[in-house]
Amino acid sequence: MFQGKIRADFIKTLTEAIYILVDESKFKLTSDGVYGRTVDPAHVGMIDFKLKKEAFDEYECKEEAEIGVDLEKLKSALKVATKDELVGLSYDKEEGRLAISIGNLTRKIALLDVAEMADTKIPSLELPAEIVLSTVEMHQAIKAAEAISDHITLIADKDGFEMRAEGDTDVVELKLSKEQLYSLKCDEKVKSTFPLDYLSDMVKVARGKSEELTINLGNNYPLKLSFEMAGGYIKIMYLLAPRIESE
Amino acid sequence: MFQGKIRADFIKTLTEAIYILVDESKFKLTSDGVYGRTVDPAHVGMIDFKLKKEAFDEYECKEEAEIGVDLEKLKSALKVATKDELVGLSYDKEEGRLAISIGNLTRKIALLDVAEMADTKIPSLELPAEIVLSTVEMHQAIKAAEAISDHITLIADKDGFEMRAEGDTDVVELKLSKEQLYSLKCDEKVKSTFPLDYLSDMVKVARGKSEELTINLGNNYPLKLSFEMAGGYIKIMYLLAPRIESE
Amino acid sequence: MFQGKIRADFIKTLTEAIYILVDESKFKLTSDGVYGRTVDPAHVGMIDFKLKKEAFDEYECKEEAEIGVDLEKLKSALKVATKDELVGLSYDKEEGRLAISIGNLTRKIALLDVAEMADTKIPSLELPAEIVLSTVEMHQAIKAAEAISDHITLIADKDGFEMRAEGDTDVVELKLSKEQLYSLKCDEKVKSTFPLDYLSDMVKVARGKSEELTINLGNNYPLKLSFEMAGGYIKIMYLLAPRIESE
Repeated sequence: MFQGKIRADFIKTLTEAIYILVDESKFKLTSDGVYGRTVDPAHVGMIDFKLKKEAFDEYECKEEAEIGVDLEKLKSALKVATKDELVGLSYDKEEGRLAISIGNLTRKIALLDVAEMADTKIPSLELPAEIVLSTVEMHQAIKAAEAISDHITLIADKDGFEMRAEGDTDVVELKLSKEQLYSLKCDEKVKSTFPLDYLSDMVKVARGKSEELTINLGNNYPLKLSFEMAGGYIKIMYLLAPRIESE
Repeated sequence: MFQGKIRADFIKTLTEAIYILVDESKFKLTSDGVYGRTVDPAHVGMIDFKLKKEAFDEYECKEEAEIGVDLEKLKSALKVATKDELVGLSYDKEEGRLAISIGNLTRKIALLDVAEMADTKIPSLELPAEIVLSTVEMHQAIKAAEAISDHITLIADKDGFEMRAEGDTDVVELKLSKEQLYSLKCDEKVKSTFPLDYLSDMVKVARGKSEELTINLGNNYPLKLSFEMAGGYIKIMYLLAPRIESE
Repeated sequence: MFQGKIRADFIKTLTEAIYILVDESKFKLTSDGVYGRTVDPAHVGMIDFKLKKEAFDEYECKEEAEIGVDLEKLKSALKVATKDELVGLSYDKEEGRLAISIGNLTRKIALLDVAEMADTKIPSLELPAEIVLSTVEMHQAIKAAEAISDHITLIADKDGFEMRAEGDTDVVELKLSKEQLYSLKCDEKVKSTFPLDYLSDMVKVARGKSEELTINLGNNYPLKLSFEMAGGYIKIMYLLAPRIESE
């Protein structure tokens, strides 16, 4: 038996965060929180999420369970809630459905068979650079880049961070010195290029939810992009495969 | 000769209220207000409206008249008015058009032949239950139900009111105890099912205009849904035919 | 070398003002401001614009230059800026591109060959009437008129100003007495008719940017429509050819 109450804003953001990659996802219900991890069908993006029980206003999980959630249905059920409203979530093994309550309204959605949903492992990655920057600034750069290209190059060295996209005739650049970043750890220059569509979706999820984004970067290597909500009790982490450029 | 001034908000809501059922409607101009009644072409929904002269800032009607109004044109004429603006309405038999004034701007619209518009009678209905509930809550339940079904069942008994929709695998329920309603009069259990598209349109008209909705309900019988504006000087009442379920 | 900083709001409005007529435009960069003039391909509408250097927060132009700007690209580059943000513009002959900076983000856009862009001359026109009216009121009248016609007649005499459109059965009229106008100079009655699509686009650009519009009117003659921003340091003037009505 699982039962919790959480701000609509938090559960809506989580749902959207997963939905940009996949239509359905496994949620692991445990005594100290809700966890999950999914990779998109093209194996380009991965999400790993953690909702600690402290992110909930009420939380109770007597027996661990894995449930398969149709994200389209969850999104639709949450649509009627305003962002400050509390959303009740409850799951009972017997009933076999997830009940989503908003005020006096309850929607019960059928669950999917988790046996058919593969487990996802996080690859172990050595990413030498860590950049913490403003979500708004990164979002602005991505919107500008999308007008001229479908990919973007991220570059970091000990002095700063740069995002750069090139079109046929035009260029978009965001240049942030160490002082203009929240923080920067980078000993040697690193540079990788990523597909803008995935990166744009990921950053849009964080926009308005978290002031800062943490980026971990390597050389022609995947990107780790992460942000927190609910005072750190919600952690969302994306991995994004690089676009390998032939020279 | 008819001449009146009314808040744009009121006349816009009335126009929309009728327009969800029909494209054109008869308006009866009398010395104590404007009245009308229309049924939709499929004979599923009916509207009966009353705008008492007190709902107007200025009101003068020297001679009773019936005018046939093209609601598309009226909506379009009202579009340029902000909701607090006063809208002048005037009709002169000689001129044969309805003049709609907003500030220094006047639009004169041609009227339709009322001879070709049938009279509508309100059927006499015995509806044993009366429920007064929050417009916002009913609207939320309808939006949620629309995601899974095209009809919804309304149930009342002496203890409370319930709305319930069932899809192939999912369920949406709004349960309101007597204490969670504005008021409840119901001696024996009643239950009827209605098409969601009509009901949704009707509730949307009331949303943001009236905090509460009054529902009169019977057993597999039409629904009466009504709300007021302008401190009760505007009354809008809908009748909606039930969807008879075969068992 | 040209370099300036200007409020996003101002440069966005200017770009939109030109873009309603053409996709690309010449900008003349001089020591006391930026100027331009363009006619639309159908030769129905013309724009003449002046951005005095005082409209900029910073301004420096060491060498006069003419640049050909793709307005679609300029609009796209400005999209990420909020209206109060400062936009940096810089042009260097060597580089051959226009750099548009918003915060730490820079987009460089390729320029067009000005040799292929014709010079536009303002025709000399004697327009006996000058009317200064509320932008909001003119916009409202145009929106109302668009619902029933594709052209509108402007009439002025010594007592007031009128806009009038006629559809098959309906009429839209805006009547403003001398007292309801900001100012009126008109000795003899003048009357001209204009295409609503052009006029609507022109007035929409001014809406929300300038409280008042100045109209210069003649008899079956072009219309001059102008407005200012930035305390008069930005001047936008349109000319619009009349629609000659056969009698």
